[in-house]
Amino acid sequence: MKRIAIFPGSFDPFTKGHEDIVLRGLTLFDDIIVAIGYNSGKSQRYFPVEFMVEKIKETFKNQPSISVQTFSELTAEFAKRNKARYLLRGLRNTTDFEYENSISQVNRNLNPELESVFLITSPAFAAISSSIIREVHRYKGDVSSMIPYKL
Amino acid sequence: MKRIAIFPGSFDPFTKGHEDIVLRGLTLFDDIIVAIGYNSGKSQRYFPVEFMVEKIKETFKNQPSISVQTFSELTAEFAKRNKARYLLRGLRNTTDFEYENSISQVNRNLNPELESVFLITSPAFAAISSSIIREVHRYKGDVSSMIPYKL
Amino acid sequence: MKRIAIFPGSFDPFTKGHEDIVLRGLTLFDDIIVAIGYNSGKSQRYFPVEFMVEKIKETFKNQPSISVQTFSELTAEFAKRNKARYLLRGLRNTTDFEYENSISQVNRNLNPELESVFLITSPAFAAISSSIIREVHRYKGDVSSMIPYKL
Amino acid sequence: MKRIAIFPGSFDPFTKGHEDIVLRGLTLFDDIIVAIGYNSGKSQRYFPVEFMVEKIKETFKNQPSISVQTFSELTAEFAKRNKARYLLRGLRNTTDFEYENSISQVNRNLNPELESVFLITSPAFAAISSSIIREVHRYKGDVSSMIPYKL
Amino acid sequence: MKRIAIFPGSFDPFTKGHEDIVLRGLTLFDDIIVAIGYNSGKSQRYFPVEFMVEKIKETFKNQPSISVQTFSELTAEFAKRNKARYLLRGLRNTTDFEYENSISQVNRNLNPELESVFLITSPAFAAISSSIIREVHRYKGDVSSMIPYKL
Amino acid sequence: MKRIAIFPGSFDPFTKGHEDIVLRGLTLFDDIIVAIGYNSGKSQRYFPVEFMVEKIKETFKNQPSISVQTFSELTAEFAKRNKARYLLRGLRNTTDFEYENSISQVNRNLNPELESVFLITSPAFAAISSSIIREVHRYKGDVSSMIPYKL
Repeated sequence: MKRIAIFPGSFDPFTKGHEDIVLRGLTLFDDIIVAIGYNSGKSQRYFPVEFMVEKIKETFKNQPSISVQTFSELTAEFAKRNKARYLLRGLRNTTDFEYENSISQVNRNLNPELESVFLITSPAFAAISSSIIREVHRYKGDVSSMIPYKL
Repeated sequence: MKRIAIFPGSFDPFTKGHEDIVLRGLTLFDDIIVAIGYNSGKSQRYFPVEFMVEKIKETFKNQPSISVQTFSELTAEFAKRNKARYLLRGLRNTTDFEYENSISQVNRNLNPELESVFLITSPAFAAISSSIIREVHRYKGDVSSMIPYKL
Repeated sequence: MKRIAIFPGSFDPFTKGHEDIVLRGLTLFDDIIVAIGYNSGKSQRYFPVEFMVEKIKETFKNQPSISVQTFSELTAEFAKRNKARYLLRGLRNTTDFEYENSISQVNRNLNPELESVFLITSPAFAAISSSIIREVHRYKGDVSSMIPYKL
Repeated sequence: MKRIAIFPGSFDPFTKGHEDIVLRGLTLFDDIIVAIGYNSGKSQRYFPVEFMVEKIKETFKNQPSISVQTFSELTAEFAKRNKARYLLRGLRNTTDFEYENSISQVNRNLNPELESVFLITSPAFAAISSSIIREVHRYKGDVSSMIPYKL
Repeated sequence: MKRIAIFPGSFDPFTKGHEDIVLRGLTLFDDIIVAIGYNSGKSQRYFPVEFMVEKIKETFKNQPSISVQTFSELTAEFAKRNKARYLLRGLRNTTDFEYENSISQVNRNLNPELESVFLITSPAFAAISSSIIREVHRYKGDVSSMIPYKL
Repeated sequence: MKRIAIFPGSFDPFTKGHEDIVLRGLTLFDDIIVAIGYNSGKSQRYFPVEFMVEKIKETFKNQPSISVQTFSELTAEFAKRNKARYLLRGLRNTTDFEYENSISQVNRNLNPELESVFLITSPAFAAISSSIIREVHRYKGDVSSMIPYKL
């Protein structure tokens, strides 16, 4: 049976930290679906969903086992619908850990087949967050070292 | 002198984690007031205050020493007005701890008689948070295992 | 029914932080037993148990509801034997929290009647630890501001 | 060469915790610029920027080496423009630490000359945060013990 | 290529928390080697290595893809010698996280092929630690709910 | 007045993380004394003090403002004796932070003139600890990437 993992997030934007986790996850999983969660009702994203889908596809264009999708439902439902038994997640620090600890238990309650698998973000990328990138970008700072594609 | 405790929160919604703390607090305190803080100006709650008051009353209908109130003032003031010398609080993880550490010092400065008393949330409920429940409910997921009443 | 609490520890030595928790616990509990755990086999204490018993008794000599005992068994057993349904514990920081989180669950498994109740150490005393006092004392430093009795 | 430090923040409002860090920083740096970051687009401050500039100036009116500025650009850019090689920051707890850990790495990437220097907030002030002060002030509570000036 | 993982530890003793991680790891890996690290020089274990090997084998006797070995070398070397590209590790709390964060980076430096993969321990087992079990056992307490075999 | 800082530790051994902090501290302080604390009574070091003094001197042989000393007294006393008003310390993670938070308060109580100044260890070195190096070295692993000198 194929090992399919979802790598869910809002990816506003997708960062080099995200790329690091997905690439390292490739040895663990046969397929990885990068899944951009969005809420059609609220449109407060900084980078539009469609734009980000393009950029992530571009990032992994040489990796046939990585695909990109958007979803607007519970992650646990999206995983079931895609026959994915794993959520791949990165951990950067203790704040991430406490958040993921809660989320992963709830996901397992909603879908007992669903296992959350964690990799620790490489030190070179652990300081990068989507919110910091948005802040730097808003003030015209150079974010090119923090994202794996050109804006 | 009666030992009266306030169990304050926004309870949007009240969870099984909250219920766990209140029930365990019953052996410590003679009366516990579940106190829903709300801000009449801002109305960004997901579950209306009145609805939640009903649900919490229903949850504890067999516990005469537990009452439910709403308040729109400083917790330290509300406690004084109700002759309560204790704030009962649950701790789920280190993020909660750092937040409660600050809040409890400030409450003691505002009302030196007021003691914050902490219980650690039982493991079965530690992953539950009001914000996760709102998220699951928004997407029509099943939240019945996370709340002590029917929606 | 009397509310009896155990305040367990190795107290090598008892600090002003410990005193802070016990005194604040007095409003919650009818009796508090300060319980020095020791291991007859191992004798690697810095301050002898008997000496510390004397100093803690001296500290609380005007508080008839506080007593001092030594014990060499599981805390959960000692509590049961003393009809104590509560463990009183202080929390100084997140390191304490993670440790107490584990210990309190295990104590509840060993003795389901036993509730661990936490107060957060007052800021003025939160930096004090028994190990720091031993270190300062070993080098003839002044520890008088960190303990509630004279050495 | 003069050692110039920026003490950046939104300071909504400036607290006794902030004052503590700046005064202790005086022995490390020749000049300290208290720099209020604001976003002209968004105006969701509780205390207006101009008001806060006045209050901070008043607080340090006897300290010629402390000045106050506003800025609406990246902190790393503002520092460069002011020939400041240091960011002075206070740490209150682990939540602060995780946040500052990320921010300081990103600032060093944007401006490799820029060193972030940390002092740990004195215990008496560690519970104070701007958001708690706003909350207390909104409900007409007394915040005078948490700020170094009169409102 | 087979996905082989090492689950390393001192396992003094092996707990239900350890069992939880290994069983959940079975869906990720083709083979898991439970590897008891010991130091021939120091013999301060509470439970002898040979005894623990027997107990872990007994625990997994119906799981042909789980084997048990002892090792007395660097984990990174042991993994290489066993053609294992993964270290499987459980995370219980932030203290574990900070420790594993450091160890996993060092292991990757020693053996760049080696990926550390983390699962978060199920809440029911997160309070269990080998050191707590030793403490309870030393005082003749009942540890049967914390280990997956009979002592 | 010269700004003199102590960089205290047991340095068993001195690591690239330590070197990182000292070199970055050079822009803040006029003189830095790397101070190896040792306890003449206990001799459980892995690397002898004299050996480590040599290696640290060698590391900084081109930095005239960095000196190396050993001490066997309270850090606060050693600082006073050397007219140093600063302790320079590195922070790698939240575990370090909680420890340093306590120690720095106690040092200020012992010597109110003494200010602890913190830099966050660069990500490339944050995983390195003296205890990990000892472990790797004990098993003949390659530690050369973790120390700034040859063993």
